[in-house]
Amino acid sequence: MQRIVSGDIKMNNETPAISDAEIQSLNAWWRACNYLAAGMIYLRDNPLLREPLKPEHIKRRLLGHWGSSPGLAFAYIHMSRLIVKYDLDAIFMAGPGHGAPGVLAPMYLEGTYSEVYTNKGEDEDGMRRFFKEFSFPGGIGSHCTPEMPGSIHEGGELGYSISHAFGAAYDNPELIVTVMVGDGEAETAPLATSWHSNKFLNPVRDGAVLPILHLNGYKINNPTILSRISHEELEDLFRGYGWTPYFVEGSEPLEMHAKMAEVMERCVLDIRRIQQKARASGKPVRPRWPMIVLRSPKGWTGPSEVDGKKVEGFWRAHQVPISDVKTPEHFALLNEWLNSYHPHELFDEKGRLRPELKALVPKGIRRMSANPHANGGLLRKALRMPDRQQYAVGVEKPGTSLAENTRPLGRFLRDILRENADNFRVFGPDETSSNKLDNVYEASRKTWMADMLPEDAGGGELSPDGRVMEMLSEHTLEGWLEGYLLTGRHGFFSTYEAFVHVIDSMFNQHAKWLAMSRDVHWRAEVSSLNLLITSTVWRQDHNGFTHQDPGFLDVAVNKSPAVTRIYLPPDANCLLSVADHCLQSTDYINVIVCDKQKHLQYLDMDAAIKHCTKGIGIWDWASNDQGGEPDVVMASAGDIPTKEALAATVLLREHFPDLKIRFINVVDLYKLAPSSEHPHGLSDRDFDSLFTLDKQVMFNFHGYPWLIHRLAYRRTNHKNMHVRGYKEKGSINTPLELAIQNQIDRFSLVIDVIDRIPVLHVAGAHVKEKMLNRQIECRNYAYEHGVDLPEEDAWVWPY
Amino acid sequence: MQRIVSGDIKMNNETPAISDAEIQSLNAWWRACNYLAAGMIYLRDNPLLREPLKPEHIKRRLLGHWGSSPGLAFAYIHMSRLIVKYDLDAIFMAGPGHGAPGVLAPMYLEGTYSEVYTNKGEDEDGMRRFFKEFSFPGGIGSHCTPEMPGSIHEGGELGYSISHAFGAAYDNPELIVTVMVGDGEAETAPLATSWHSNKFLNPVRDGAVLPILHLNGYKINNPTILSRISHEELEDLFRGYGWTPYFVEGSEPLEMHAKMAEVMERCVLDIRRIQQKARASGKPVRPRWPMIVLRSPKGWTGPSEVDGKKVEGFWRAHQVPISDVKTPEHFALLNEWLNSYHPHELFDEKGRLRPELKALVPKGIRRMSANPHANGGLLRKALRMPDRQQYAVGVEKPGTSLAENTRPLGRFLRDILRENADNFRVFGPDETSSNKLDNVYEASRKTWMADMLPEDAGGGELSPDGRVMEMLSEHTLEGWLEGYLLTGRHGFFSTYEAFVHVIDSMFNQHAKWLAMSRDVHWRAEVSSLNLLITSTVWRQDHNGFTHQDPGFLDVAVNKSPAVTRIYLPPDANCLLSVADHCLQSTDYINVIVCDKQKHLQYLDMDAAIKHCTKGIGIWDWASNDQGGEPDVVMASAGDIPTKEALAATVLLREHFPDLKIRFINVVDLYKLAPSSEHPHGLSDRDFDSLFTLDKQVMFNFHGYPWLIHRLAYRRTNHKNMHVRGYKEKGSINTPLELAIQNQIDRFSLVIDVIDRIPVLHVAGAHVKEKMLNRQIECRNYAYEHGVDLPEEDAWVWPY
Repeated sequence: MQRIVSGDIKMNNETPAISDAEIQSLNAWWRACNYLAAGMIYLRDNPLLREPLKPEHIKRRLLGHWGSSPGLAFAYIHMSRLIVKYDLDAIFMAGPGHGAPGVLAPMYLEGTYSEVYTNKGEDEDGMRRFFKEFSFPGGIGSHCTPEMPGSIHEGGELGYSISHAFGAAYDNPELIVTVMVGDGEAETAPLATSWHSNKFLNPVRDGAVLPILHLNGYKINNPTILSRISHEELEDLFRGYGWTPYFVEGSEPLEMHAKMAEVMERCVLDIRRIQQKARASGKPVRPRWPMIVLRSPKGWTGPSEVDGKKVEGFWRAHQVPISDVKTPEHFALLNEWLNSYHPHELFDEKGRLRPELKALVPKGIRRMSANPHANGGLLRKALRMPDRQQYAVGVEKPGTSLAENTRPLGRFLRDILRENADNFRVFGPDETSSNKLDNVYEASRKTWMADMLPEDAGGGELSPDGRVMEMLSEHTLEGWLEGYLLTGRHGFFSTYEAFVHVIDSMFNQHAKWLAMSRDVHWRAEVSSLNLLITSTVWRQDHNGFTHQDPGFLDVAVNKSPAVTRIYLPPDANCLLSVADHCLQSTDYINVIVCDKQKHLQYLDMDAAIKHCTKGIGIWDWASNDQGGEPDVVMASAGDIPTKEALAATVLLREHFPDLKIRFINVVDLYKLAPSSEHPHGLSDRDFDSLFTLDKQVMFNFHGYPWLIHRLAYRRTNHKNMHVRGYKEKGSINTPLELAIQNQIDRFSLVIDVIDRIPVLHVAGAHVKEKMLNRQIECRNYAYEHGVDLPEEDAWVWPY
Repeated sequence: MQRIVSGDIKMNNETPAISDAEIQSLNAWWRACNYLAAGMIYLRDNPLLREPLKPEHIKRRLLGHWGSSPGLAFAYIHMSRLIVKYDLDAIFMAGPGHGAPGVLAPMYLEGTYSEVYTNKGEDEDGMRRFFKEFSFPGGIGSHCTPEMPGSIHEGGELGYSISHAFGAAYDNPELIVTVMVGDGEAETAPLATSWHSNKFLNPVRDGAVLPILHLNGYKINNPTILSRISHEELEDLFRGYGWTPYFVEGSEPLEMHAKMAEVMERCVLDIRRIQQKARASGKPVRPRWPMIVLRSPKGWTGPSEVDGKKVEGFWRAHQVPISDVKTPEHFALLNEWLNSYHPHELFDEKGRLRPELKALVPKGIRRMSANPHANGGLLRKALRMPDRQQYAVGVEKPGTSLAENTRPLGRFLRDILRENADNFRVFGPDETSSNKLDNVYEASRKTWMADMLPEDAGGGELSPDGRVMEMLSEHTLEGWLEGYLLTGRHGFFSTYEAFVHVIDSMFNQHAKWLAMSRDVHWRAEVSSLNLLITSTVWRQDHNGFTHQDPGFLDVAVNKSPAVTRIYLPPDANCLLSVADHCLQSTDYINVIVCDKQKHLQYLDMDAAIKHCTKGIGIWDWASNDQGGEPDVVMASAGDIPTKEALAATVLLREHFPDLKIRFINVVDLYKLAPSSEHPHGLSDRDFDSLFTLDKQVMFNFHGYPWLIHRLAYRRTNHKNMHVRGYKEKGSINTPLELAIQNQIDRFSLVIDVIDRIPVLHVAGAHVKEKMLNRQIECRNYAYEHGVDLPEEDAWVWPY
């Protein structure tokens, strides 16, 4: 065995030839895969065709996707060959949709599947069960779901294979991530830009990604774009993306094996040469990484025609190539097809893969299906965390001093970067500075492997060694982060609130992955995905209406309560406390909403930790109900809504000194949900003791107001809860003016309270008028001067 | 004037030279633009610098984005020159974020701005107002918002300029869409794949898109990828995408004008040659369309250094180049910079652009700012609609026959395609057939300009003349459709429910565009965006958990009630009725949820029209309360939930013959919202008369259940509304088994009713047990056979 890792590569530019015997063996192994893939779709019994095929052996409902399976298994065995030859550390990702049969088959043949699912052994009975459960209720999916060993990329929603692959490769210098990209998938937006990930991979410290673009030719019902442009355009495209494409094209299996063996070995050797050179010099320059374009027929080795219509090499091979097997002609065709793989030559009398074929593939954790990187929790080390206390903002007195909420977090992240230099990265779409997290650059620059210019020295903060990942693609960043986490590392992603919707669907899919993973006994816990949503709706100022959308939370709450957490820290210390907690958690998606601008600070660090640990609480200093029953409850969640609610509280106390007000702040949004619906939900008793059984509750919320009703509609006092939030009213606004438009402002809240408490109606009439006048003044001032009324803008807590 | 349109082009391959005098004029016009762009950011008074600049002339808060403005105006004037020279019909889209100053300036200079906003006239006072209102409360945004004449692309969220441009160009054979693409924007996922739109544009019948990739060099805080790869890679990339890139690179204005004039003229002539050739031959082949790469300094002509730090040509020029103008040095620098444009040379004593400069640009609707394509409602013709009755599914008796819900719609769309052959297209991401809309291909094939193979004839349904748009990119399709609608045409988009989240953010932005447009007095109404969400959560069968997500509705309801409409037709005829209505509506986004599989049919066409027109109603045939007060209300929204609710109704009637059940079906989801919140909302009186004041209501819902609470929480009887829906529980499931997992199944509903109605508790105990047993049987049967219990699967309405 010839182990090639950085530093000890000794080879010239020639790729060793592959012998005919080896080709025959590879082909046999591949035939076994293809047989298994077909078997999964069709057979519920007689898995080895020991007896003549009968209708009762065939599944009643034929489900599955044959089209991309042979190509996937083809690439898998060729990579496995090189793992054995060079003792490579490699994993495999399947981008093509519904590609599971092409990956399940190799994983079963490698024995991993039987190891984790012991009732699907490597024998005839195990194979029967393995076939039956495929795409079957209670069984395994037609995507590479979390239940599949070796998988960290499901591919149910297309577009993320390359970004996941890069995420896995970062900071894993010896790892090669083999990633099949479907040519359908390649049309998606996220995939199209993710090819540029090569400008963010440093050959000195990162591993390698070996993409195999599978020009399978067809999607469900259409040819693919990349299979229908000229060879020249295709080559230009990938050279333009910065890759060196190698082409493996054809359909005759033995010839294709010879080509693939040669090309893939060349690619692996290229990768090691690039790494060796970079690591020897210590000076990383962006190489042209190799990639493979595999053009093979869709449904390769399947039936070439059914009913006189082309199937192999056409879109009809996408799913089940012979869909109705009840007619004698179709049945005969299926029989002929399945037997064409000669399963008896591949499996022994017990149904085990023959030893000479078994010997072809790697052993133990070198099997791509058993590589611990694909069960990253096994490799995960806890983050070394500096003491959050050191980053605290001093708060002498609540609500009297200002700070940028996110800046202390930037310092915290900086030191986490310093103390975890090989397994923690910070992600943001060109917004890390804008989001005031730029202190992170003191620990690490921005990863940059594209060209540098002299002026970059003067504040560009770019470096091949950077660990801050910035590209103007939320999709790519999210994909990188997911791949990084699923391989056992840690990360933090900050992004603008309105544009986090760009990755709604990626969030959904990752949440589903995590929820499923929790039920997979052999999957170890991975670090949570930490998402800071900042530059929020209330402080868009001149950015206008397009930048106002707090609706990501409405997407988040639909996902499994086992994996979703939502926090709205009202100030800098609370944000530190929340982030500290989230960064140490596992298997969640933590959504943290906190604005980056200067805001009032309320809690010192001890109080913040206490408050955030509870997740919800009465702020005694802002309440005057002295622990007794209040006349009205003022509640808030989010920074600006909290400030406005506090300002309203002061106005109320000024105008109605006898009114007893309880002030509640919510950090952990799920506290509002019933405890039966979410593990963080307050018991009804606790909820009632906070929100009372029958008092008026004004709830000032960061997001769309209905979310609070959705969470709290079952609570005793829900009928008295009046929620204010963003109501899709905005343009270019000053902060207070925007608040007024959406009625979360201090004046509107005072009016609300007066309107809802009958004893205030008479005495409150003139107060209401005053409030309405203040609103008009504010608006007029904003339209005249472009800023809020100075006295309201400078508001502080007076008591 | 030399008019070049298809058919009468007579030119050789030479580009006419531009004279020095013309260059000087163009440069003066451009200087005027740059002056205005700087003025918008800085000046609140003294707009023409007639008196020496004083601090009080400067805005208190400096907002805006200078960086990309000069490049935008540069391209604008060069296109304007060619419009004049060749009488072109052209519009302009600004992709770069916050690019408004670079487009507002030319629009003001063209006079269009003053025409629509008469208080911002072409004089000193108008200019002062024009400056002041920029990025100012109550004013105009820093993006190309709907308030801006000539704009149909806001660019607040980045990534859609190219797809919008193609959407505008389709079926507009004479139109040239000039589209600036920011190099930051070019990193986004949607932009990266949208370059492939050239495989879907037919030079015979469609117009042209002339992209100008603006290599401005920097984003907010980082260089851009495309500006930091080699010239060779960049050229390869665009050649690979199928374009012919022409490079205009430099910083010296006069040289750059000469280069740009030459290159742009060459591009326009190339476009016309391509079109002429294709139209003369009638045989469209995919040409290599020209595009321009404009590499110019960020913040071009702005201050080169501030405080010794590089500004022009660096990311510091992104927003306000001199941010603090209170120091004497900065004030002097600003003064020098503003005066460097010599405004007195450009504007006359009244503040009007000097006539010789005014003469440079097109007149009337040839001005890009006044082109009616950019106010597409002006050009919109109503769709010619066939009678929906012809497509009706026969329904003898409710709930007894099956049909694929979407298939009749496919026939309806086919005939709409036939009758509106120049202004209607159907969009779907490779799923039109999968979604059972394939009858549309009888009227029109799929647009395809990439390579064709012999086998495409046998069912590929591809053609350069196709009007069914299929690419595996929801982003690109949505962008095309938006561009198509905003230029006055009609369309229909169908997509898988789970993956419509891919375009959540595009939906949000389009909804915001429409909501703003309603307040712009001069914008004419455009056709609604019609989105059919199908392949829904309840019928994913073997696709599994990744394909189960009905949460798009939760995104939709956050947007302005003025523009959002949501329909859940329960069967094929209702879908026809809803689609018929939506296709004729304007200025909405109509979200229609309906599955593609075979489902029970309930209403004949007359009944369907009646029901859908009301949007909500009692189904008398399914109720046994005889118009009196029921004991329980069974309500449903969505196809599968309706079937299950009906099946539960039958079980209840069998077991409790005296129980009076009212059955309500909801098609128009907003009927549930208060009438104060949404124009479709029922009055409380009407709601109460349907849902009663105090009876138990079981609501079986298609989506996540909380959405119903969100809409109905203020209703009188809300406390008795029990909603069932998808609760994020699923894997590979048979339909009924998935329903059981999420408790929307017939058995769970019966149990719910028994549990909630005390008089049923005793008699119901054995019924509950029976229901629980049926659930277990169903699950066991599914796990054994892979299908539902035949007797439950074949359930029909028995009365």
